[in-house]
Amino acid sequence: MADSAVETAAPRKRGGGRAGKAARRGPSAIEQMPWRLPINQDRPTEPLREDGVQAIHEGAMRILEEIGIEFLNTEALEILKQAGCTVNGENVRMGRDFVMEMIAKAPSQWTMTPRNPERQLIVGGEYLLFGNVSSPPAYWDMSVGRKMSGTREMCRDLLKLSQYFNCIHFVGGYPVEPQDIHPSVRHLDVLYDKLTLTDKVAHAYSLGKERVEDVMEMVRIAGGHSHDEFDADPKMYTNINSTSPLKHDQPMLDGWMRLARRNQGLIVTPFTLAGAMAPVTMAGAVAQSLAEGLCAIALAQYIRPGAACAIGTFTSNVDMKSGAPAFGTPEYMRATQMTGQLARFYGLPLRSSGVCAANVPDGQAMWETSNSLWAAVQSGTNMVYHAAGWLEGGLIASPEKFVMDCEVLQQIQRYMEPEIVATTPEDIAIEAIQEVGSGGHFFGIQHTQDRYTKAFYQPFLSDWRNYEAWEAAGATWTPERAHRIYKEIIASFEAPPMDEAIHEELKAFVARRKAEGGAPTDF
Amino acid sequence: MADSAVETAAPRKRGGGRAGKAARRGPSAIEQMPWRLPINQDRPTEPLREDGVQAIHEGAMRILEEIGIEFLNTEALEILKQAGCTVNGENVRMGRDFVMEMIAKAPSQWTMTPRNPERQLIVGGEYLLFGNVSSPPAYWDMSVGRKMSGTREMCRDLLKLSQYFNCIHFVGGYPVEPQDIHPSVRHLDVLYDKLTLTDKVAHAYSLGKERVEDVMEMVRIAGGHSHDEFDADPKMYTNINSTSPLKHDQPMLDGWMRLARRNQGLIVTPFTLAGAMAPVTMAGAVAQSLAEGLCAIALAQYIRPGAACAIGTFTSNVDMKSGAPAFGTPEYMRATQMTGQLARFYGLPLRSSGVCAANVPDGQAMWETSNSLWAAVQSGTNMVYHAAGWLEGGLIASPEKFVMDCEVLQQIQRYMEPEIVATTPEDIAIEAIQEVGSGGHFFGIQHTQDRYTKAFYQPFLSDWRNYEAWEAAGATWTPERAHRIYKEIIASFEAPPMDEAIHEELKAFVARRKAEGGAPTDF
Repeated sequence: MADSAVETAAPRKRGGGRAGKAARRGPSAIEQMPWRLPINQDRPTEPLREDGVQAIHEGAMRILEEIGIEFLNTEALEILKQAGCTVNGENVRMGRDFVMEMIAKAPSQWTMTPRNPERQLIVGGEYLLFGNVSSPPAYWDMSVGRKMSGTREMCRDLLKLSQYFNCIHFVGGYPVEPQDIHPSVRHLDVLYDKLTLTDKVAHAYSLGKERVEDVMEMVRIAGGHSHDEFDADPKMYTNINSTSPLKHDQPMLDGWMRLARRNQGLIVTPFTLAGAMAPVTMAGAVAQSLAEGLCAIALAQYIRPGAACAIGTFTSNVDMKSGAPAFGTPEYMRATQMTGQLARFYGLPLRSSGVCAANVPDGQAMWETSNSLWAAVQSGTNMVYHAAGWLEGGLIASPEKFVMDCEVLQQIQRYMEPEIVATTPEDIAIEAIQEVGSGGHFFGIQHTQDRYTKAFYQPFLSDWRNYEAWEAAGATWTPERAHRIYKEIIASFEAPPMDEAIHEELKAFVARRKAEGGAPTDF
Repeated sequence: MADSAVETAAPRKRGGGRAGKAARRGPSAIEQMPWRLPINQDRPTEPLREDGVQAIHEGAMRILEEIGIEFLNTEALEILKQAGCTVNGENVRMGRDFVMEMIAKAPSQWTMTPRNPERQLIVGGEYLLFGNVSSPPAYWDMSVGRKMSGTREMCRDLLKLSQYFNCIHFVGGYPVEPQDIHPSVRHLDVLYDKLTLTDKVAHAYSLGKERVEDVMEMVRIAGGHSHDEFDADPKMYTNINSTSPLKHDQPMLDGWMRLARRNQGLIVTPFTLAGAMAPVTMAGAVAQSLAEGLCAIALAQYIRPGAACAIGTFTSNVDMKSGAPAFGTPEYMRATQMTGQLARFYGLPLRSSGVCAANVPDGQAMWETSNSLWAAVQSGTNMVYHAAGWLEGGLIASPEKFVMDCEVLQQIQRYMEPEIVATTPEDIAIEAIQEVGSGGHFFGIQHTQDRYTKAFYQPFLSDWRNYEAWEAAGATWTPERAHRIYKEIIASFEAPPMDEAIHEELKAFVARRKAEGGAPTDF
């Protein structure tokens, strides 16, 4: 087997001196696994036979050819007309030859390089990357114990967790919506926080040209890039959602095209909730999701052949009793796996999510999240959005859930290390078995001593003590332990180093754009 | 794909009249999935390449040929000597030709038929069966909130849960040790409870000839069988554990041989905790586990060619900081998958477990248990021991955890239903997508109406309401909800019907054996 991970590259020259070095080493709230890009060498779980893959592909193509997708964006409509698509008002139908020709231009693997080049990501192939929860309007914290509107302070705390944990590879949208910042300037403040508190790949919401352009400019400044350098390869990404069924909105398409032109990362993720915005049958919901995603990727490839695209899945089901969305269900898992088969059929990297419907970080939250994370592994997913911190179907961000999820993510990273399943003679260990025989134990022998510090996953949150020791230590349940760790991480957090001139330029940009009024808030 | 499950056979004539019918229908504490034998059609996750399988096989064979296993049982030693094995004192070495010849006699699939023939199980092939937690000395219950010694009443409650849930297919050992019953007669009381409170496949501890013979006799009586009928095919099973490293104890081997002679089910499960009772390397721990298991199966096949055997895995790792056993870890998952590859290599059904190290039914409990249960699915496991109710590495049984686990088990059952991934034209649903177009939703259309009651998994414990509705309903976390359901199930429990004459015979047997003093308790 190949190496399990791309280890951190050799340190490069950067600002920050002693403090910077300490920050790179990281504070010591917990002992965690090192930064690495996990490689998933498991053969994916594939519930569809070849004829099933063909049937879903055929369904997606028929949706695009016969039913069409609404593109609520004049510029996109003109481009697609020019490309030979059938445009009737806002409805666009595209033939499978065109779609497949465009999809074939999309690379199956690409990189994103944030301001710290040691955090470069590879998207596609066998890489499996994790991102923090994105976009919940609300926040839940053990010490308050109720749902609260998101604030900038909460958002900053969650960004600190996103930076702190090595198992979080990229920073998604706002980890909670800071509703105490006016929407016209919210992107400026949060991106400033994100780019100073983290050095990982960042994301732009496609919510109007000003926001998109501001974020690209801030990422460019933070990376110390010229405009040409910024455009040379992806430094950041956007994720757009279709308005299912069968519709792409104006601002989403606008951002999509802007990032395509600037050569940045593009992820399209339809939210096809089976029984609500998509057919009640999972194959139908997956086919519709693929159609909605593929037409956006075709548009990007027409604008910029070879644009860095990934297809997302967010297909789940509703609770048919209440109509509420459900997450981490058996149907969700199978939809993710099916979409994985189709993503490989199209040669596109896959994005899925870490999700649950639970309202608090309890047992239900963890079985639903485990279901969704294992489905990500089994499906051959490349980017896992919302992998840490998500509650209530994405309406709540929780720092305790974030910490709990990171324990699971680390276990998945460890699970993918080929050392566990190595079968060299030293692993089979006949001599050690002979040495111990039937009367002893393996604790003290040399074979164990040589390996025990690295032999097994070491948790930072799981309590493996017996009941009596656990009780004597305070009998704390998992969310309480996670709360303490979260507080310790925040208390000892050190921001990654940033060149002072770059920092000043970033602050000046934010100040100028605020003075100009930020972005319009009329949609 | 084939049918997903063996549905309950047509009702057969049985005693019980109206009450019996109600019991078969089951009380209405919750809406649960029907009884069925789930079929796992996923291709297993196989971390080992062919050379890795060969390396572990070679290791297991070398352990058996060169190091040998202690058989602390005179009769077994004589049999193995007669079979041509090299016996030195209690150490037995056996050549791979003998081992492989014996293993080849073991069927890859077999049945067990309890007193209710509708509960017949198929062990092996693609079947995935779940059993309740077995053998914890202690009990933890939300209403008390502390660890308590097991009692008969607790044991009866857990047996009621085992009977109630259709996703529990077989009843393992005592779901908690009833320490208020003297060990000499404990097996009589618990088997009486088990055979009257449940009608599912039962288990005998191999803890001395009297216990084993008593349990076989009670299962025979409960099934209304003659001795010949009982011996005709498996009605029950035992599970023995080797005393790792490399040792089989006297009473375990005694029970093993007694059940082999009576044609009952035989499962051997070494407890090879890597770094303690086995090498610190997972491949070494798996090789040792296989060696310890295969030699017991070879013995059974020599005694009775074609005996119904399964190989168990209980390979996990210790916490190298404390030496405490850990469960549901990445290493545990990979060891289970590796053992699955070897079980298929040997053509033997596989047993694994649903396990965790957590002390209370919280988030850690559920991610560890989810890890172990998904490893069971991925490994091609056929019987999952301890699939519901296990805490603290098997030292605690908890009714709340039992109920929580059953929600996960039902989801795994649902996950395996091929309807979810069906791709007929009705599943792709082009007409429905056309009908809804880009402006509507799928709630009201005929395609949805025709399918919505059966389209998705319906939970009985998960709360899918939004935060506000959940809060208004009392803001109960998962274990509290599970506690209520457990209480409702116990309050409305109806035992399965039993012919009155058989019931009397069973009671008389227990009374007689108690009068005779039960089993000796000198070991």
